Amino acid sequence: MKEINTEAIQGMIPKREKDSHKATYGRVLVIGGNEEMGGAIILTASATVYSGAGLVTVATAKVNHTALHARLPEAMVIDMYNNDRLLKQLATATVIVIGPGLGLSPESLTILKSVLEHVTKEQRLIIDGSAITLMAIHNLKTPVAKTTYTPHLGEWQKLAHLKPTEQNETLNIQARKELKAFVVLKKSRTEIYFLDEAWKNSHGNPAMATGGMGDTLAGMIAGFSAQLKNYRFAVISSVFLHSKIGDDLAKKQYVVLPSQIIERIPNEMKEFSTKFIF
Amino acid sequence: MKEINTEAIQGMIPKREKDSHKATYGRVLVIGGNEEMGGAIILTASATVYSGAGLVTVATAKVNHTALHARLPEAMVIDMYNNDRLLKQLATATVIVIGPGLGLSPESLTILKSVLEHVTKEQRLIIDGSAITLMAIHNLKTPVAKTTYTPHLGEWQKLAHLKPTEQNETLNIQARKELKAFVVLKKSRTEIYFLDEAWKNSHGNPAMATGGMGDTLAGMIAGFSAQLKNYRFAVISSVFLHSKIGDDLAKKQYVVLPSQIIERIPNEMKEFSTKFIF
Amino acid sequence: MKEINTEAIQGMIPKREKDSHKATYGRVLVIGGNEEMGGAIILTASATVYSGAGLVTVATAKVNHTALHARLPEAMVIDMYNNDRLLKQLATATVIVIGPGLGLSPESLTILKSVLEHVTKEQRLIIDGSAITLMAIHNLKTPVAKTTYTPHLGEWQKLAHLKPTEQNETLNIQARKELKAFVVLKKSRTEIYFLDEAWKNSHGNPAMATGGMGDTLAGMIAGFSAQLKNYRFAVISSVFLHSKIGDDLAKKQYVVLPSQIIERIPNEMKEFSTKFIF
Amino acid sequence: MKEINTEAIQGMIPKREKDSHKATYGRVLVIGGNEEMGGAIILTASATVYSGAGLVTVATAKVNHTALHARLPEAMVIDMYNNDRLLKQLATATVIVIGPGLGLSPESLTILKSVLEHVTKEQRLIIDGSAITLMAIHNLKTPVAKTTYTPHLGEWQKLAHLKPTEQNETLNIQARKELKAFVVLKKSRTEIYFLDEAWKNSHGNPAMATGGMGDTLAGMIAGFSAQLKNYRFAVISSVFLHSKIGDDLAKKQYVVLPSQIIERIPNEMKEFSTKFIF
Repeated sequence: MKEINTEAIQGMIPKREKDSHKATYGRVLVIGGNEEMGGAIILTASATVYSGAGLVTVATAKVNHTALHARLPEAMVIDMYNNDRLLKQLATATVIVIGPGLGLSPESLTILKSVLEHVTKEQRLIIDGSAITLMAIHNLKTPVAKTTYTPHLGEWQKLAHLKPTEQNETLNIQARKELKAFVVLKKSRTEIYFLDEAWKNSHGNPAMATGGMGDTLAGMIAGFSAQLKNYRFAVISSVFLHSKIGDDLAKKQYVVLPSQIIERIPNEMKEFSTKFIF
Repeated sequence: MKEINTEAIQGMIPKREKDSHKATYGRVLVIGGNEEMGGAIILTASATVYSGAGLVTVATAKVNHTALHARLPEAMVIDMYNNDRLLKQLATATVIVIGPGLGLSPESLTILKSVLEHVTKEQRLIIDGSAITLMAIHNLKTPVAKTTYTPHLGEWQKLAHLKPTEQNETLNIQARKELKAFVVLKKSRTEIYFLDEAWKNSHGNPAMATGGMGDTLAGMIAGFSAQLKNYRFAVISSVFLHSKIGDDLAKKQYVVLPSQIIERIPNEMKEFSTKFIF
Repeated sequence: MKEINTEAIQGMIPKREKDSHKATYGRVLVIGGNEEMGGAIILTASATVYSGAGLVTVATAKVNHTALHARLPEAMVIDMYNNDRLLKQLATATVIVIGPGLGLSPESLTILKSVLEHVTKEQRLIIDGSAITLMAIHNLKTPVAKTTYTPHLGEWQKLAHLKPTEQNETLNIQARKELKAFVVLKKSRTEIYFLDEAWKNSHGNPAMATGGMGDTLAGMIAGFSAQLKNYRFAVISSVFLHSKIGDDLAKKQYVVLPSQIIERIPNEMKEFSTKFIF
Repeated sequence: MKEINTEAIQGMIPKREKDSHKATYGRVLVIGGNEEMGGAIILTASATVYSGAGLVTVATAKVNHTALHARLPEAMVIDMYNNDRLLKQLATATVIVIGPGLGLSPESLTILKSVLEHVTKEQRLIIDGSAITLMAIHNLKTPVAKTTYTPHLGEWQKLAHLKPTEQNETLNIQARKELKAFVVLKKSRTEIYFLDEAWKNSHGNPAMATGGMGDTLAGMIAGFSAQLKNYRFAVISSVFLHSKIGDDLAKKQYVVLPSQIIERIPNEMKEFSTKFIF
């Protein structure tokens, strides 16, 4: 496996072009957050906005709209249970992330199926959290969009039909091929599986083992994917920065809160976009 | 075009007078924020308050009241769909900003028409975002108030009936004359069109190309207009400071969040009000 | 008039006693905030809590409860329109502040009358904002509680039946006597009228001329009154610190936000409680 | 009594293990917050999350969900009045804290009884605030779970049937034995009663005598208990750090806000987890 480290991500995050405007940096649709897990989608959306996505719309249960606006006035909101509204927004999105706090109810499944059916092959799609479990349980097929799955080990087991003991590089690559998607396998040293290569993160620490940390990564991947032409670079560099920020914070903290990671994204992106351009 | 820079804005922001009170600094009515775009009006209102407006009332959909109060207890709220209430508040306002997150629905149009009909020629009116689009679509005429439009390029195209390739200084000035209003044309280097002169900003950067940045500028123009006797100075200096703060933040950030701009307004205004008085 | 300054407030804020607990520092009931002015009561309650009051309950319109909790989890909330609930809470309070954002509706008047009727002569009562206007309009008499009015000039005119030109020290003292209450007359240099002496603030600046600043002062007076045995000291020292913090912030800010004042109260109180004890 | 101080807690907070994930650090169910005291449970839940618990779910009145998410997106929420939902969540919890802001209504009692009946002997249970009063009033017995009570003096009087004058070490230990639980007796110098030993805190100060401080301690005990194998160490070290942070803040503050304590937990835990390992 290739190692994800400071050297490897050099040049992956380009400087922003002078005559750009917000539409240049993508339209992201963030879908998730049921009546009990609204916090998850707030974290995802915040990470997307703080990563620099141009326009972010959050499809979530209505009960979450006020808390989301109170934390993140930069995003727009729609009701995720309103399928017409969801599809209209979906059609304008360049990147979609679905799953954080989505839940496993029949209504959640309906939303997921609707998205899978209507995404296009130009769109980038990140499938995370509850949505991965729903894909696995209901044997749903990866859609035509440029798809990335972001499972943790338990979700990967269900999705790839691999027991923990079977999860080695060769079998993971094989499973990835069948899925026809990128896979970000979240663990203490996160691994990324592309079609022809696998990467292993050199950062990350146990202070990051806390609720909401995965939701935050999904939002970063979406935000980076909305801006970077190179999709692989977006996935690799967001995985790297997420854990890099976590490592920095963990030097002085016993636990690292997802919201603390989010606040630091703009500064850390700048650091890596200017330092290592060649 | 004249250049908007540090030297040009010298003396535009006067020191506050010793025996002043909050009514001295204007009563601003901020109108916008439908059920899906409440964040926009929160940003606008915050920018207005942090710019130093004396009293700020926000007319927005009821669903946005709680998020607004949670972020900005300094502002009052009314229901924008209650026309009687809106007009009562309008009558007491010295400055009105309409449009951020207002939407394009029939109800939004009703609100806009009601405001256009009832503003007086003593009031300053900033027309932004959705309200510009509504003006263009429905061929509404600039009202008697001292009006400023703040279109981005796409909105300007609709409002001025100018294709992007036709948007040069001469034709923009011509269009401005027909509109009988100031025009703040938002772009990477924002331009301001008055009756007899045009200004071009020397600040601004691509890290500011993110959702909510225009809503924030509209709020700053409103806040400055509420305090400065000279309306042109208010428009020029708010455009300058908005981008100046953005440039400062962009030195260390890949993306600049609107809420970060807002927090810095009081300090930056102080800087320019004390340094360059003559 | 005596001058309120650093020397004058020496020794007014005592150190906290070692074996104290939260009940030692008073139970404050903060009443106000209708459907449009919830922000006012959030500012008042925040100032009360950050001033160190032991237990703070906020009686406000239900629509404001969520925003209040989102900003200030340290306070409890009740519905101000529920008279039984209000009176039950009133009976346990040592200090009451009524008025910020209360409004002038018949329902607001009912609440005020209920409070005036049920306060006891042991309780300290601060009457602010809308409540002052209601007292003046309806010719309500100062109740038996140890009462402080906190009018700005316009409210004082109505309450004391004094035209602006008539508001001199002698007539203000006379009006105060008829009211049988302390009066904090808010202006660029705030004045305090006790029975036998008048004080004039030496601090305060025009950057503080912004909405919510008076609500914040009312909360500070309540918070200080809940803790200090000497009621006069509580009023004088809270007026001083409010403007002292404002002056400090105004050195670097064009406008000072009420919420910024509030955050600094604990540090500034410490400064003056330890330095000048004798 | 043994003294709780810097030396005593050496080694109690272990470093996190390298290959851990969020489930390693416990699933905490935080129960409380009725319609008037939602702030209490927000503080408790925040303290639990900032202490590093892996997954935190808050069972509270629906009216508190939005404020909780606005402050703490890291937590999940359920309706505490939905018994089926509560019991389902209870079954997956490793630590439960019940009581902050729960209230004394019949509905609150029903929730408490349901929890007492269904906890298992493997679970750790912290009983705080209103729940202690309910236990005392209704003569409820300590359940089979590993239980800790966190009364202040007034609550301890009711629970232990000891008048203030009778509360000495010997009688407290005796009462503790009858309760079959750990007891954290909150006072200016908090005491902890285990079966065979008693500890007395050497930290804490009167600036901490403010509403919500006890709710915060309950959350810290829960958070520490979710992570530390040694339950006693969790109780001792959380009591210590809570007051240690309070002492640090009180050096510069007249009053210490609970929310300020919470923000510092991750840094302070790090300090003591790395410095004193042996």
